[in-house]
Amino acid sequence: VILEISPDARLVDISHEIPPYAITDAAFTLSQAWTCFPEGTVHLVVVDPGVGSSRRAIVVEAAGHRFVAPDNGVLSMIYEAVPDHQVREITAARFFRQPVSRTFHGRDIFAPVAAHLANGVPAAETGEPVVDYARAVFAKPRQLGPGDWSGTVLKVDRFGNLITNFDSETWLPVIGDAFELRAGKISVSCVASNYAGVESGGVFIIPGSAGFLEISANQRSAADIAEVRSGDAVELRLAF
Amino acid sequence: VILEISPDARLVDISHEIPPYAITDAAFTLSQAWTCFPEGTVHLVVVDPGVGSSRRAIVVEAAGHRFVAPDNGVLSMIYEAVPDHQVREITAARFFRQPVSRTFHGRDIFAPVAAHLANGVPAAETGEPVVDYARAVFAKPRQLGPGDWSGTVLKVDRFGNLITNFDSETWLPVIGDAFELRAGKISVSCVASNYAGVESGGVFIIPGSAGFLEISANQRSAADIAEVRSGDAVELRLAF
Amino acid sequence: VILEISPDARLVDISHEIPPYAITDAAFTLSQAWTCFPEGTVHLVVVDPGVGSSRRAIVVEAAGHRFVAPDNGVLSMIYEAVPDHQVREITAARFFRQPVSRTFHGRDIFAPVAAHLANGVPAAETGEPVVDYARAVFAKPRQLGPGDWSGTVLKVDRFGNLITNFDSETWLPVIGDAFELRAGKISVSCVASNYAGVESGGVFIIPGSAGFLEISANQRSAADIAEVRSGDAVELRLAF
Repeated sequence: VILEISPDARLVDISHEIPPYAITDAAFTLSQAWTCFPEGTVHLVVVDPGVGSSRRAIVVEAAGHRFVAPDNGVLSMIYEAVPDHQVREITAARFFRQPVSRTFHGRDIFAPVAAHLANGVPAAETGEPVVDYARAVFAKPRQLGPGDWSGTVLKVDRFGNLITNFDSETWLPVIGDAFELRAGKISVSCVASNYAGVESGGVFIIPGSAGFLEISANQRSAADIAEVRSGDAVELRLAF
Repeated sequence: VILEISPDARLVDISHEIPPYAITDAAFTLSQAWTCFPEGTVHLVVVDPGVGSSRRAIVVEAAGHRFVAPDNGVLSMIYEAVPDHQVREITAARFFRQPVSRTFHGRDIFAPVAAHLANGVPAAETGEPVVDYARAVFAKPRQLGPGDWSGTVLKVDRFGNLITNFDSETWLPVIGDAFELRAGKISVSCVASNYAGVESGGVFIIPGSAGFLEISANQRSAADIAEVRSGDAVELRLAF
Repeated sequence: VILEISPDARLVDISHEIPPYAITDAAFTLSQAWTCFPEGTVHLVVVDPGVGSSRRAIVVEAAGHRFVAPDNGVLSMIYEAVPDHQVREITAARFFRQPVSRTFHGRDIFAPVAAHLANGVPAAETGEPVVDYARAVFAKPRQLGPGDWSGTVLKVDRFGNLITNFDSETWLPVIGDAFELRAGKISVSCVASNYAGVESGGVFIIPGSAGFLEISANQRSAADIAEVRSGDAVELRLAF
């Protein structure tokens, strides 16, 4: 559908492996990838739920990039990274693929609008600015009590590592040597600097490549052991 | 293999996620995608079984498109959509990758022939017309008795929705408010217009984006609940 | 990351479906694919473990191709196919993506180095030659006793076929009609020439398209029956 409208577009498939309905995972995956692309890039994001329901389609302009997505919070990490962003509701039906189906808006609305933007159509032609767009709250841990914090699993990667929303730079100095991090059936109390330093099957925390603390199991899936998935809670208890 | 023969070909991967042996799924997936491509496109379809057995490789010309596939019925929906089509058996070994292996005809026959067609080789040079090619019977529901119809699950999509071969335009007015649709362990009696209008886990029928009635479960996999897969039967009973 | 450095590079995704840690599978998959590409191609291979540990990143030049990979044995089949190869340790940090993360060397070291090679940077600029690089031993069966051989499952393909390291040309004449091949819970004693000649669910050996004997089950997954995966042992017993 994109190539029909924009035959010279260079398509880069960041991922088709976001689990259904995993908005947290999609938001995180996008937040890791978009800065590798040059200004002018159009990012097309579709994740259920939202398609076919009353959720709006939006175009976001931020840092010279454009994002086409459902208004379900999947762009929340872009909003935080680029405070000076603008959100528009997509209403200009002349850019849609006709007839628009009830459920396949990825094909009929999101993809063709993204292609027209890639062709140079200004975002302003797709619809009017809105301010009441959805923002999710999974970006930062919340304090529950003294030394007690609640966070979120942003993503389970293909190795089963649990990427949490505790950013390494802030939290590594805080947790020190006396902490307990719980995620589902896993309780971890040790930090390792890489996978090779741990016995096979051992569970540990590692400051991951994404800038966040990850719960990993050497040569095993931490997610399988913990029985958690993206969007689930993690709890951190500090000892004083 | 294709780029070796046709370096400027633009490759679009419609799907590498058809389950093994799922001819019905492949036929449906192709039927949904091919009309999005411009005339002159070469469509390469490989699905087991058929490769390595006595089934023939064929080239089909229809509506200005070319299709390279095994003669196992996977192109049946193209035959129905374009009555004026021509089928040829591929026999011109000069277009094959040598030596031709016993089992990997996707690499050694289908891909190189598709590449030569993309380069402008006329279909007529690949082999002679045949008329006894395979046609599958999954395209339309069959009547079993008064108000009793037997259909097929064309595809289980990645969300677990069951796409049936009851087309929405014909069947929505027929089923009205009094019907029962059975697929494996699921029995459904209600139609919803989108996923958001149903309680979590609820099972319902929706007129899908492909033009067919789909059996869906809100935020769950209907296929997991029903324990069915593509090619399995669905039964519709109407109340009078 | 690659397109940032080499915007005109043609990217061909051979596979993103190697199971985590499956070095044997990756080595085999690469050995099957690389000869389909023209001289001058840069092959980028990343498979755990090794990333983030003390294993080195290497560039290998062989037969006019370049390979960028971790030094964990994943290129062993290239070394055997091209005795006249040269291995270098990648040390030139000016080609890395900065800052280099602790765990995501695919993004920060392997991909950018591959892109610079594609742009024409000579391999010699990436680092010095080394001779103590890792070579794996899964390429050939080993003799255990008279008529008793131990081999390896190189790969489980998506149909569940077990591709062994017994090459068909050598071993088909040897095994004749009286042999037993064991892999996990499977014991096989018959050779078939294609999938269609065997009853549904039947287990058999077939000389596969890769040039090796494969253990297959008609319309079923041999791997599920045998409960084995790539890297596991197979044992061949010959009758005299």
